[in-house]
Amino acid sequence: MELIDGKKTAAEIKDEIAAEVKKMMDNDERPPHLAAVLVGNDPASETYVSAKEKACKQVGFSSSTYKIESDVEEEELLKTVEFLNNDPGIDGFIVQLPLPDHIDEQKIIQSIKPSKDVDGFHPENVGRMTIGLPAYISATPNGIMELLKRADIETQGKNCVVLGRSNIVGRPISILMSRTTQPGNATVTVCHSKTQNLKEITAAADILIVAMGKPHFVTADMVKEGAIVVDVGIHRVESDKTKSGFKLIGDVKFDEVSQKVSHITPVPGGIGPMTIVSLLMNTLRARKNEIYH
Amino acid sequence: MELIDGKKTAAEIKDEIAAEVKKMMDNDERPPHLAAVLVGNDPASETYVSAKEKACKQVGFSSSTYKIESDVEEEELLKTVEFLNNDPGIDGFIVQLPLPDHIDEQKIIQSIKPSKDVDGFHPENVGRMTIGLPAYISATPNGIMELLKRADIETQGKNCVVLGRSNIVGRPISILMSRTTQPGNATVTVCHSKTQNLKEITAAADILIVAMGKPHFVTADMVKEGAIVVDVGIHRVESDKTKSGFKLIGDVKFDEVSQKVSHITPVPGGIGPMTIVSLLMNTLRARKNEIYH
Repeated sequence: MELIDGKKTAAEIKDEIAAEVKKMMDNDERPPHLAAVLVGNDPASETYVSAKEKACKQVGFSSSTYKIESDVEEEELLKTVEFLNNDPGIDGFIVQLPLPDHIDEQKIIQSIKPSKDVDGFHPENVGRMTIGLPAYISATPNGIMELLKRADIETQGKNCVVLGRSNIVGRPISILMSRTTQPGNATVTVCHSKTQNLKEITAAADILIVAMGKPHFVTADMVKEGAIVVDVGIHRVESDKTKSGFKLIGDVKFDEVSQKVSHITPVPGGIGPMTIVSLLMNTLRARKNEIYH
Repeated sequence: MELIDGKKTAAEIKDEIAAEVKKMMDNDERPPHLAAVLVGNDPASETYVSAKEKACKQVGFSSSTYKIESDVEEEELLKTVEFLNNDPGIDGFIVQLPLPDHIDEQKIIQSIKPSKDVDGFHPENVGRMTIGLPAYISATPNGIMELLKRADIETQGKNCVVLGRSNIVGRPISILMSRTTQPGNATVTVCHSKTQNLKEITAAADILIVAMGKPHFVTADMVKEGAIVVDVGIHRVESDKTKSGFKLIGDVKFDEVSQKVSHITPVPGGIGPMTIVSLLMNTLRARKNEIYH
C-alpha cells in the first residue's frame, strides 16, 4: 500500500508558487493578492481564514481580510463585494461561508465577479467547469485532481465511484473525473443517500472518492483489493491516546481499508492540506489572467 | 412493453401551453415572444428554425427570426445579440448552432443574457443547473425529464446509466437524474468512448439513456430484462421499404431491444418531439420571469 501524501505534495506546490512569485517580484511585477471577507465570529471560519493568510505569507502573496460584524445588512455586504470586484489591486477574493441566516448566501456568491471568484462557487465558474471551459474550480475537487495528477494515478477507463453529491465536492469531482482530461476519462458513478446496493457498487470501484461526511463510514468489506481510495472526510473525535484528548479521522476506516488498497489518502495529511494550496493556485491563475482574458 | 410516446406527450404539453397563452391574452397580457438568430443557409438549421416558428404559431407565441448572411462579422453578430438582450418585447431567444468557422461560438453564447437564454447553453445556466438552482435547461435533457415525469417513471434509487457525455445531452441529463428531485435521485453512471466493459455496465441498468450518436449501437444483449430505455439518437438511413427511400432510426436497435424492456422511447416519435416543446416551456417560463426575478 502506498500513501498519497497530500501534506508533502502541498508543500511542493507551495515551493513552486513561491518561486514563481519571486520571479514576478524580481521583474518588478506586483505579487498576487488574495482577499477574504469574514462575517461574524464563527471559530471554524476564523481558523480557516487565518490559515489562508498564513499560506499567502508563505508563498509571498499579498493578502487582506475584511472583518465584518455578523449583524451587517445584506446591502452593505454587497457593497463590500462590489468594492473588491472593482479594486484592480486584488486578483481574487473569497467570502467565507457560512454567512449569517439573514443574508442570502447565493445572492452574495452571484454578486462576485466570476473572474475574481477564486473559490469557484459562482454559477458561471461551475458552468464553465461542467462544459469543459477554463474555470476556477473549487478548492477540494481542484486539490483532489492535482493530487491524483502528481501521484501519477492512471484514471482513464477506470471505474470511479464517488460517494456524495454535494455542490462543493461530490458533484464537481464526478464531472472532472469524467471529462476528457488526465486525470479524467474515468467511468464515473455518483452514489448518495438514495443509492441502493451501495456496498456492491463501491466494491467494484477501481477508484473510490469518499465525500459523505460520515466518520469511518467506508469499511474494508466495501472496497476492492488493490483499489485507490481518496478520503475527503475530516472529523474531530475524542481519543484517549492523544494529549489533546481528540484526534482527526476521515470517512474511511483507515486502519482496515489501508490493508487492502494499492493507494490511499490519509486523514489528516491527505486532501486537507491540498485545499488551501488550490486556492493559492487559483489566485496565481487570476494574477496571470489565465482563466478570463 | 410500453412505448413512452413523446409525440403524444408533446402534443399534450402544447395544448396546455396554448391554454395558458389564451388566458394571458384574455387578460390583455402580451403572449410570450421567442426569437431566433439564423446565420447562413445550413439546411438542417433552416429546417429546425422553421419548425420552431411553426410550434410558436401553434401555441400562440409571437416569434421572429433574424436571418443573417454567413459572412457576417463577429462584432456585428454580437450587436444583434445585444439588441435582443435589451428588447423588452422579446422574452427569450436562441442563436442557432453551428455558426460559421470564423465566429467564436462560445463568445456568442456567453454574450446572451442568461435570463433570455432559453437554449440553456450559457455557462451561468449550466452552472445553476449543476448546483440545483432554477435554470433554463437545454432542450433535450429538459425534454427527457419532462417525458419521464409524465410517463410516471420511478427513478429514485434506480441504477441509471447514461451513454455519452456531451455538453448538450449526456452531461446535463446525468446531473439532472442524480439531483434530489423527481425524476431524479437515481444512482447515475456516465459511460463514454473510454469506458471499459460497457456491456456489463449497460446490462445492469434499470434506466438506460442512450445519447451516443451511433445508429443501432445498443443491442438486446446489452440491456437488462425489464429495463427502461430512452433513445436520444436520430439518424437518417437508406431504406427500400419507404417511398422516400430513407427512414429514421435511433442509437438503439429498437426491434430487438423493445422485446426485452418494460418501457422504451421510439425513434421517431420519442425524444425528438419533446425538444421543441422544451424550448416553448422555457420561453413561457421566461415570459413569467420564473427563473430570473
